[in-house]
Amino acid sequence: MRVFRPAAVLASLAFTLPAVPLLAQAAPGAEAKPSPEREWEKRLLAVPSPDEMREAVRRLSARPHHVGSAYNRETAEWILSRFKEWGFDARIETFDVLFPTPKERLVEMVEPTRFRLALEEPAVAGDPTSGQKAEQLPTYNAYSIDGDVTGLLVYVNYGVPEDYEQLERLGVSVEGKVALARYGRSWRGIKPKVAAEHGAIGCLIYSDPREDGYFGGDVFPKGPMRPRDGVQRGSVMDFPSASPGDPLTPGVGATKDAKRLPVKEARSLTRIPVLPISYGDAQPLLAALAGPLAPEGWRGALPVTYHVGPGPAKVRLKAAFNWDLKPVQDVVARIRGAERPDEWVLRGNHHDAWVNGAEDPVSGLAPLLEEARALGLLLKEGWKPKRTVVYCAWDGEEPGLIGSTEWVETHAEELRQKAVAYVNSDGNARGYLGMSGSHTLEHLVNEVAREVQDPEAKVSVFRRAQARAIASASSAEKRKEIRDRADLRLGALGSGSDYTAFLDHLGVASLDLGFGGEDDGGIYHSIYDDFYWYTSFADKDFVYGRALAQTAGLVVLRLADAELLPFEFRGLADASREYLKELKKLLEQKQEEVAERNREIEDGVFEATNDPRRPTVAPKKEEVPPHLNFAPLENAMVALQKGADRYAKARARLDGRTVPPPVLARVNEMLVRSERLLVSPQGLLRRPWYRHLLYAPGAYAGYGARTMPGAREAIELKRYSEADGEIARIARALEEVAALADRAAAELEGAAG
Amino acid sequence: MRVFRPAAVLASLAFTLPAVPLLAQAAPGAEAKPSPEREWEKRLLAVPSPDEMREAVRRLSARPHHVGSAYNRETAEWILSRFKEWGFDARIETFDVLFPTPKERLVEMVEPTRFRLALEEPAVAGDPTSGQKAEQLPTYNAYSIDGDVTGLLVYVNYGVPEDYEQLERLGVSVEGKVALARYGRSWRGIKPKVAAEHGAIGCLIYSDPREDGYFGGDVFPKGPMRPRDGVQRGSVMDFPSASPGDPLTPGVGATKDAKRLPVKEARSLTRIPVLPISYGDAQPLLAALAGPLAPEGWRGALPVTYHVGPGPAKVRLKAAFNWDLKPVQDVVARIRGAERPDEWVLRGNHHDAWVNGAEDPVSGLAPLLEEARALGLLLKEGWKPKRTVVYCAWDGEEPGLIGSTEWVETHAEELRQKAVAYVNSDGNARGYLGMSGSHTLEHLVNEVAREVQDPEAKVSVFRRAQARAIASASSAEKRKEIRDRADLRLGALGSGSDYTAFLDHLGVASLDLGFGGEDDGGIYHSIYDDFYWYTSFADKDFVYGRALAQTAGLVVLRLADAELLPFEFRGLADASREYLKELKKLLEQKQEEVAERNREIEDGVFEATNDPRRPTVAPKKEEVPPHLNFAPLENAMVALQKGADRYAKARARLDGRTVPPPVLARVNEMLVRSERLLVSPQGLLRRPWYRHLLYAPGAYAGYGARTMPGAREAIELKRYSEADGEIARIARALEEVAALADRAAAELEGAAG
Repeated sequence: MRVFRPAAVLASLAFTLPAVPLLAQAAPGAEAKPSPEREWEKRLLAVPSPDEMREAVRRLSARPHHVGSAYNRETAEWILSRFKEWGFDARIETFDVLFPTPKERLVEMVEPTRFRLALEEPAVAGDPTSGQKAEQLPTYNAYSIDGDVTGLLVYVNYGVPEDYEQLERLGVSVEGKVALARYGRSWRGIKPKVAAEHGAIGCLIYSDPREDGYFGGDVFPKGPMRPRDGVQRGSVMDFPSASPGDPLTPGVGATKDAKRLPVKEARSLTRIPVLPISYGDAQPLLAALAGPLAPEGWRGALPVTYHVGPGPAKVRLKAAFNWDLKPVQDVVARIRGAERPDEWVLRGNHHDAWVNGAEDPVSGLAPLLEEARALGLLLKEGWKPKRTVVYCAWDGEEPGLIGSTEWVETHAEELRQKAVAYVNSDGNARGYLGMSGSHTLEHLVNEVAREVQDPEAKVSVFRRAQARAIASASSAEKRKEIRDRADLRLGALGSGSDYTAFLDHLGVASLDLGFGGEDDGGIYHSIYDDFYWYTSFADKDFVYGRALAQTAGLVVLRLADAELLPFEFRGLADASREYLKELKKLLEQKQEEVAERNREIEDGVFEATNDPRRPTVAPKKEEVPPHLNFAPLENAMVALQKGADRYAKARARLDGRTVPPPVLARVNEMLVRSERLLVSPQGLLRRPWYRHLLYAPGAYAGYGARTMPGAREAIELKRYSEADGEIARIARALEEVAALADRAAAELEGAAG
Repeated sequence: MRVFRPAAVLASLAFTLPAVPLLAQAAPGAEAKPSPEREWEKRLLAVPSPDEMREAVRRLSARPHHVGSAYNRETAEWILSRFKEWGFDARIETFDVLFPTPKERLVEMVEPTRFRLALEEPAVAGDPTSGQKAEQLPTYNAYSIDGDVTGLLVYVNYGVPEDYEQLERLGVSVEGKVALARYGRSWRGIKPKVAAEHGAIGCLIYSDPREDGYFGGDVFPKGPMRPRDGVQRGSVMDFPSASPGDPLTPGVGATKDAKRLPVKEARSLTRIPVLPISYGDAQPLLAALAGPLAPEGWRGALPVTYHVGPGPAKVRLKAAFNWDLKPVQDVVARIRGAERPDEWVLRGNHHDAWVNGAEDPVSGLAPLLEEARALGLLLKEGWKPKRTVVYCAWDGEEPGLIGSTEWVETHAEELRQKAVAYVNSDGNARGYLGMSGSHTLEHLVNEVAREVQDPEAKVSVFRRAQARAIASASSAEKRKEIRDRADLRLGALGSGSDYTAFLDHLGVASLDLGFGGEDDGGIYHSIYDDFYWYTSFADKDFVYGRALAQTAGLVVLRLADAELLPFEFRGLADASREYLKELKKLLEQKQEEVAERNREIEDGVFEATNDPRRPTVAPKKEEVPPHLNFAPLENAMVALQKGADRYAKARARLDGRTVPPPVLARVNEMLVRSERLLVSPQGLLRRPWYRHLLYAPGAYAGYGARTMPGAREAIELKRYSEADGEIARIARALEEVAALADRAAAELEGAAG
């Protein structure tokens, strides 16, 4: 029999919190009680050192370290040795994965005049690593197919589906043409995918200075923003429609002996060749376009009049790649749990970069290493975690979340049994704590955020994030919610980092944490993302690195040491209700929009407003979206709220009481299983690797999350016939979670009674 | 005794109107009845000829014709001879007014590097009149004071009061500095005025390509937009705070013997020197600024990172002017009314330009001349207008509405007695009918708009404007109103053209009409606003010129020939109710905004969201605006609606019945007087020249209208103690109109009974 004490019961730290609503401060039984756990937490918070992180960032970003590079291997081994030094049981797990690198890259305007694009980022004086040309990957988009195409150019704005609707209104088609899209709005891989769906034969993606250049601030090296020849590398693997990870081994680990698809059968390669270009390279192409004036929202910050084309600019795009297998080296380090070794708390950040990667990923990796160093110190001082702690430095994240995905696929069965939660980060900057993830962890991460001090504002990072949310709220109603709600809402996870396989494929409760919002940057995936840039323009004192190590470290520590896991269901109930509300609103909007447009078509509004000198094509009438049966979800909401409230009450009543170990074990097992109930073994329609029913990357958004994706995308993509079935499937999963919360509450009530 | 028949009772013309809501089509007693008036209207609509207008535009824009120029005199005389030729009793009325022209203009960056701005618009090959250098006015802002100042440069965005609040948040002051403002958002004269109020010593105004240049389309001569060296000339006379017209004779006509102020006592000159510049000239200045990054909404389309300053760019601005009196020559032409010669229907458009002025003002003047030619033809065919028709071609509009203002001031007493209405235009383009003005004329102008065919869409110009309004409405609620309401709403008149003295000073019901919305243009007030530009890029076939002549001509004809003047009160009642709604909403917003800001200040939100690398100054707490007594206006609304409904009913019941001439005379007199009731002899507080209680130019907006200005600006400018008094004053005026409508209705009921 043990004394139960939620890990969250903590005194405030030494700094003063300004007045916030009572609810936002109170935790169940919020009296300061000294305890061993509390002492270890204090210890952990004191360790992370900006100097150590500075040195780690310098070391890790000293040379280019992309997948398969010499320095990537050195980096993995250095990390391994650190983990070992700190007392972790660490090793490197290697997978062999498809990683194409450029053999030939050519973009040339062939009409009306002829010139060849530079496709080259120059070294910058004063930035010592920018000149490491021999080791830098050239600018390219990984998983573009090989191709050599020539066609008239069409500017497609961000290249998302709405942009093609607009093109249709303008009477412009990309069929047989080369699409020029700008970065932004969607994940980059969506752009060639949608272009190909509309018949384009090639795709160029450029960084417009409106989103990523001088519009946002002074350019590098004077300021932090993207210079005219800076290029955003990046993967265009079609993971949202297929799956992330090695394209040749979908769904299974890319181990030595794994069965591999032939390259041409890989589903996640693009259908057309694609290359990224700088705005310096893009400007003369845009200037050479005629045809309709680009709609106002399509115009960027280059000093040209944006036209859509097609042509007269005609462009040749040639790309050829080495289609090699390369090793990815995940560093995995464990501290075995003293009491519950088969409950694993996982923490990860990737270590591979596109080039030097000081910001992405090293600024997130260095805090992770500081957490590990701190835990190592605690170990030496006698700390014994109840649960097993697993620290991971992933390889191959950049090309397609490969290291984490292959590891998860390889260890899927064990993880389904043992994984309590996965805590991710991926780069870090100055500013506000960003918190996304599974809503059962919402209360935990909010409580931790109340314990960590913001290095600039000298208030808790919770308080600072709350102030930011208030300052940027779009309505009085939203401000009221932010002020009155006990916790700040977690964002929903889409994709774009290593939590994806844990959350979406296995249903492991996951968090993604990181600071940001104050530093602008224009060096993403370029040779300028290096130590010089980071220490000139970003978190140059590494004080936000410390804040991240404190935040993520404390989350890990509480998860590892809690008697009763700090999961809660009220955040999940509330978030689900919001998602349902959004679904209903989305449907209603679509209904109104289509009905209104149909009416305007009938009334001749489009003809009456047509300008014969800028003719447009009127849209066609469409079926108004049908009403859908939301009742199963409505009912699930009632059950979930009831279960969540009952569990919260039962948990609160425990404070200070003993709970029999078998009860604790049963309830903890239920809590771990709660997220598993949200995944469906069949997976989502058309993309079965994605199994989570509440969160998925948008099939046409990429990194952007789609909540209740089966139902939401049925509406967005006009597959209305699927919607009722998907709504029912989500509702059943939430009903199961509700029942589980109810049973868990009953267990605790019995123990307290 | 006569047969009464509202002029509005007309058969539809030959073209087909698409289905629109029944209400929108029906006019009282909307049966086709042949009548002499109807025949004259048909005749009038048939006359206006694109070829004639083309020739007039060519002739009138052949050379620069600004105030005091040789070609200005020739133009006036040519117009005079045309009026005479068409049978009008025409003459030129001349006033001698202060019109400064540049003696010296210098803008130089003196630090950190030295260069001199061009301040020069180059001639363009292919555009024959752009090279008439000897006759062109240089680029300048009229009524800038002389000055020679040197100071650090500060970029102030549009230079409106909110921008200075933002500067304060950024910790930047213009005290002792030179303000660089961009054109747009406010009338240009507001920019140096607000800059001076904040202590600036000089002001430059430039055309950013975001609003006026390549962002909007291809630049001249390839396209219609402003080229890099194009400059917007224009007046910066502070007419919104003082009065328009000759600065030396405020309130009285600038006749030969008028008493004149010394120049230095003129209230409407600027306090600091100001010059306009091109974006070609502005770019290196903006590029030389450091200091805080400009807020996102401040950044234009130049390829630089916009900073606010101050400096390091230091600028010298020198301007000296010839402070001469120049003649302005109004051409005033009459056809004497056969039955009611002392009821005047006035129609005007200015003839002076900044340079060649093909678009501004000639594209509006040519249709006016076509209307006059058409009326001349009608005269020859035996038409005798019941009322006197007065056609005016104003001079001196560009520097400050001078020709119309001096004429109105000179003839104020007679106009108060006799003016029925004033119909203005000022330039014309392709697109949609824009209708603004006195709401007693709302129904009239809507009925006319149903009779004129749009040359492109082949539907009525009413229908096309309605379709545009539907297509661009911001909410379903607004779309519903547009569809269901009988008439399209008239815009409220601010200032910026020659209706100002008629409406705001005398209370003569006024309209401003013109087509636009399809042609973009970047030649406003530049040497490129010429025949070549207009016939290359604007209404090059002059078919919208014809539509304007038909629309304005028909309005004039109906006003001139109606037995019972086509005034109505329901539009006024409805518009007033909207204005009251807006007032209340404005107050509520201000209250919420201040209360919220105060709370955020108390809660430390500003400190918590402050970025130490981009520090901002938290705003100060403010008194929350008090609640105001809107009851007098609420009561006036009830009375006005009642009076308006009673009048409309009485008018509708008249159809076809005889009305005794004395009744008609009494009611017509009341209708004319209705607008006079809305002016207060005391005028608005602090600017007594402006007497209208419903419409005024915004003291800090310029051209932009402020409705119920006394009350509205009391709230906007935080003079809350004035608000209740102003509300009561507006309410009394509306109560008087309500009583008048009631009495007019009683007269008609008596006649019909």
